[in-house]
Amino acid sequence: MNNKEFIALISEKLNMSAKDAGAFMAGLTTEMTSQFEEGATLSVSGFGSFEVKKKLERVLVNPSTKQRMLVPPKLVLSFKPSPLLKEKL
Amino acid sequence: MNNKEFIALISEKLNMSAKDAGAFMAGLTTEMTSQFEEGATLSVSGFGSFEVKKKLERVLVNPSTKQRMLVPPKLVLSFKPSPLLKEKL
Repeated sequence: MNNKEFIALISEKLNMSAKDAGAFMAGLTTEMTSQFEEGATLSVSGFGSFEVKKKLERVLVNPSTKQRMLVPPKLVLSFKPSPLLKEKL
Repeated sequence: MNNKEFIALISEKLNMSAKDAGAFMAGLTTEMTSQFEEGATLSVSGFGSFEVKKKLERVLVNPSTKQRMLVPPKLVLSFKPSPLLKEKL
């Protein structure tokens, strides 16, 4: 289900216009993204939690050339579903 | 940031009451959960995609007792951030 289909579903189920549902979703994802940019962890009740984790730098060795490469540290966003959500799957 | 703090932030940024923001978030997570219960994949524009994946059953061996255990198959929810979101971290 893509974004448009999901907004249509939400607007129907929550009894609001597709325009309002779309605006809310856009605002929501923008705010979530700003939080993640600041490195904040976010818990959504009954759903799960999002956390920005730092992956440390590491050295890779190419097995055929034996060449070493330094993979720089990076930030990744992880999502952990809540126990309630896990149970429902 | 917990659910309550996030709803307060959303209501402020999107200029709506905390009650409305909370109701929307609750409705949204309920709908997302129903989708995942049906095994649907969900893409949220500019944010990322959620997918229910099946982990196959597998055999574990306890290294000290050599006892074999069958771990049953299970469904897990995975989240993959969009390239846009990854870039912002």
